Amino acid sequence: TQLLGKRKDMLRLEGATAILFAVFVRYNRETDAALWHWGNHSNADNEFYFRYPSFQDVHAMIFVGFGFLMVFLQRYGFSSVGFTFLLAAFALQWSTLIQGFFHSFCGGYILVGMESMINADFSAAAVLISFGAILGKTGPVQLLLMALLEVVLFGLNEFVLLSLLEVKDAGGSMTIHTFGAYFGLILSRVLYRPHLEKSKHRQGSTYHSDLFAMIGEASRGVVDEETEADEGTIFLWIFWPSFNSAPTALGDGQHRTALNTYYSLAASTLSTFALSALVGGDGRLDMVHVQNAALAGGVVVGTSAEMMLTPFGALAAGFLAGAISTLGLESVFPLIAEGQRSATSQAMHQLFALFVTLTFASVGGGLGAFPLVPSTLEGSP
Amino acid sequence: TQLLGKRKDMLRLEGATAILFAVFVRYNRETDAALWHWGNHSNADNEFYFRYPSFQDVHAMIFVGFGFLMVFLQRYGFSSVGFTFLLAAFALQWSTLIQGFFHSFCGGYILVGMESMINADFSAAAVLISFGAILGKTGPVQLLLMALLEVVLFGLNEFVLLSLLEVKDAGGSMTIHTFGAYFGLILSRVLYRPHLEKSKHRQGSTYHSDLFAMIGEASRGVVDEETEADEGTIFLWIFWPSFNSAPTALGDGQHRTALNTYYSLAASTLSTFALSALVGGDGRLDMVHVQNAALAGGVVVGTSAEMMLTPFGALAAGFLAGAISTLGLESVFPLIAEGQRSATSQAMHQLFALFVTLTFASVGGGLGAFPLVPSTLEGSP
Amino acid sequence: TQLLGKRKDMLRLEGATAILFAVFVRYNRETDAALWHWGNHSNADNEFYFRYPSFQDVHAMIFVGFGFLMVFLQRYGFSSVGFTFLLAAFALQWSTLIQGFFHSFCGGYILVGMESMINADFSAAAVLISFGAILGKTGPVQLLLMALLEVVLFGLNEFVLLSLLEVKDAGGSMTIHTFGAYFGLILSRVLYRPHLEKSKHRQGSTYHSDLFAMIGEASRGVVDEETEADEGTIFLWIFWPSFNSAPTALGDGQHRTALNTYYSLAASTLSTFALSALVGGDGRLDMVHVQNAALAGGVVVGTSAEMMLTPFGALAAGFLAGAISTLGLESVFPLIAEGQRSATSQAMHQLFALFVTLTFASVGGGLGAFPLVPSTLEGSP
Repeated sequence: TQLLGKRKDMLRLEGATAILFAVFVRYNRETDAALWHWGNHSNADNEFYFRYPSFQDVHAMIFVGFGFLMVFLQRYGFSSVGFTFLLAAFALQWSTLIQGFFHSFCGGYILVGMESMINADFSAAAVLISFGAILGKTGPVQLLLMALLEVVLFGLNEFVLLSLLEVKDAGGSMTIHTFGAYFGLILSRVLYRPHLEKSKHRQGSTYHSDLFAMIGEASRGVVDEETEADEGTIFLWIFWPSFNSAPTALGDGQHRTALNTYYSLAASTLSTFALSALVGGDGRLDMVHVQNAALAGGVVVGTSAEMMLTPFGALAAGFLAGAISTLGLESVFPLIAEGQRSATSQAMHQLFALFVTLTFASVGGGLGAFPLVPSTLEGSP
Repeated sequence: TQLLGKRKDMLRLEGATAILFAVFVRYNRETDAALWHWGNHSNADNEFYFRYPSFQDVHAMIFVGFGFLMVFLQRYGFSSVGFTFLLAAFALQWSTLIQGFFHSFCGGYILVGMESMINADFSAAAVLISFGAILGKTGPVQLLLMALLEVVLFGLNEFVLLSLLEVKDAGGSMTIHTFGAYFGLILSRVLYRPHLEKSKHRQGSTYHSDLFAMIGEASRGVVDEETEADEGTIFLWIFWPSFNSAPTALGDGQHRTALNTYYSLAASTLSTFALSALVGGDGRLDMVHVQNAALAGGVVVGTSAEMMLTPFGALAAGFLAGAISTLGLESVFPLIAEGQRSATSQAMHQLFALFVTLTFASVGGGLGAFPLVPSTLEGSP
Repeated sequence: TQLLGKRKDMLRLEGATAILFAVFVRYNRETDAALWHWGNHSNADNEFYFRYPSFQDVHAMIFVGFGFLMVFLQRYGFSSVGFTFLLAAFALQWSTLIQGFFHSFCGGYILVGMESMINADFSAAAVLISFGAILGKTGPVQLLLMALLEVVLFGLNEFVLLSLLEVKDAGGSMTIHTFGAYFGLILSRVLYRPHLEKSKHRQGSTYHSDLFAMIGEASRGVVDEETEADEGTIFLWIFWPSFNSAPTALGDGQHRTALNTYYSLAASTLSTFALSALVGGDGRLDMVHVQNAALAGGVVVGTSAEMMLTPFGALAAGFLAGAISTLGLESVFPLIAEGQRSATSQAMHQLFALFVTLTFASVGGGLGAFPLVPSTLEGSP
């Protein structure tokens, strides 16, 4: 009967989503047979050709990258790849609705096309990042509830940042990575405080408080515990230029974003290897470097990659990000923020955006814990 | 000497193919240096830029997806990845000729370009689907003979359906998946009836008779027996939007096809998980859900994804396909067909197309068994 | 302290690279916000849309393909995937500078964009090919020094061949594969002559001297020793059409290059399987066939794929390349060269280019050994 209850919950969730789709979601001009052919559009001008290759890279990155990062965590007795798919498949539908209301609501309808597919995948990425923090600690229905809540707050946060504050955040450093990591961390802390002594090796994370540590923590929570997630990591590293450039303005902006991310990743790989105490040590551990480099180098330019960073600026940003995430020097952090402040005139703006993100994520993560608490205390596997 | 015979057979096959290429195959306008530059074509207008990204996704899906689905079947003592490459490499050459005669034969020549590459890959996909049903039961030369016959019937079936009956089948639900699955099943039954008691766990499949069961069966034959084919499955799931949209008309049609497939896959993942009795069970099995969801959600909109399904229609189709393929409810099937009939005006047409496909596939599969029987009875590994 | 020295070396290297970037490297017109919008360029005309999908394929091929070919070599006690990333990440930055000086130096600045990203990845590929020959025999800093030297010679060789001699080498058969393989071989021989008796199974390679043997050797050095590198191989095979077509002229040339490579790979797969004594043998070994086929079929048309080879020509070239690399018949080689000579009028030119490549590679490989000798003799792991 418990199983039956789970099934019914999932079916209700999907049913409600489908009904909302029926009421609200429509093809946008670029995907609608009538609207597109009304007017003088060449088929070759369809946005599909400018965004679809990037979308598929993001799609592969999210499902292979995040999926495989979790595949080896099955020692928890949970089937993490399956859950990755379940969560992501739900999150992308649900965020089509939520993001649609905020970004492409027009005449009572949500209009969908290539951009909504990319945004839905991004939203799924944030959910999977949070998933990493509570992996193996709760069941599928609880995870879907987490996704339900997180996607709403994700959409709200993104709307406040991108539309109201007009923050630039091309690669979603703030809206995706910071939000997802922090949401997961808060959720995990509220949920597992009583059990903390059981998992001592996670305790260290409690004492970090800055941005890079948080992101690193969330990822380390996933990666430290197993060192075979090589493949997932490689996909993240390879497709990060697409991840950052997929949603930017067409033309030179998108071109520049891919280029900046490419150099930033390369430099953060070098600094990560150079500064890690593990260089020259045993072989299996060093994908953690690549993992850190990927996160640090990709995330650091996520917000700024579309700007005229210069190739040197991208290299320097990646180098510093790799160094900071490897050394974990909180003391270095203010300096860097200082550096960024003079480099980009938007820094104050960004810091405020960060504050907003953290507020949404922590309130949401704390709130999200309540529905999940009972099932966790029951001692789910 | 037997080995020598095999070598000679392969060389003859490749030699004959090469001679036919020399006589018949030419570059089409878009790949020919003289023809393309004759006239006022911008290089940026070349079809390459509109189809190549989709082609590469299909290519990765077929070789990684199908290749890895079979990689873990090596307990049969056969090297299935190697065979996958051998078969696919032959099928794509041979189908360039066969499909060329039917679709791009012009002035005595077969003209090849991006579209023929996509179609050749599709043909290889059908051969690999059939391969799944007889995997480990016959040798490389027999497999090449199977491909030789199947590609011809595939081309003929496709020609009858797409050119004569003018059926819409963008993602090849009928021409690729149903044809390939049914061809393999018939071939496998004719070949292995005497040995049936040896593989009791396959017997269940004999009693199913509807479309979804067949497709599911063929895939389950591949997947049930091993649960580590995760990676292959993930590639199928990720790249299915490209698979369905690669051969469609440029513009909004291609855009819509990718979008519909995306939503259909997401919904079928949810319904598959919700309805499977295995949810909450042990971890390793649940990639079979994703596998089923991928097949069901991708295949169900294959035929119709280019149409104005609406986002809700895509979601509903995926949901039902996932449910049906999971529950295996033959009783539900007529209802669904009913639903589709009213939803799309072409249903009767499609049913007739299905009949044609099954006829070609079963006659071909039965026929194809004869050359393979001797080698099988000899007790090949 | 030794570890500290290594760290400092890496940081110095990255620091020097960053300074050179600051002084010399600038966005090119297509990635620069001001230059692009000055004039009447449609955003859709940006080179990004014509080259980025190909670039991402090449990127995936180099990092997944080469990375995974080496992942199973970890028995050397070295972490080869990590080293792959470290090397490639450095090589792509460094070659941005070197290739920039030779190819896009304009008004005192190196202008970077999509083409420089593709070329930098190619340069990284050559370094990784050489890496295969000395894998597990030296430390990370020595590898970075090798990359430092190899990238310079790579750029010089490429400049002499492509700009001075105006050789056509679309897929980099000569500049990438032959150069990388030969550089690695010479380096490995100079370094390890004293230790030769320790690794008898490599000795056979000393007696080969022709082009195909060399390339095959370098790859076999990587592959023979382990047969689980399936995935890397599959990525090489799948993305080779992108590898060959990424840097060609836009339009029909790029289209034709992808098509020719596609057919050449298919035919070389057939001939490799047909001619290999391993067909019908045990299962695990046969990815070596696919590996050989990928190398042979992709490399053989690398130089000529952009030309009007005809589909039959591509098929025949692939077939012969697969046959030669499988049989290792040096005696056949002159005949083939003869055949190519009459087929393409550029053969003498190409042979001279080959001579130049071999000179650069062997002088460089021999020279490169000196800085590495001490550390090797010390008996590094």
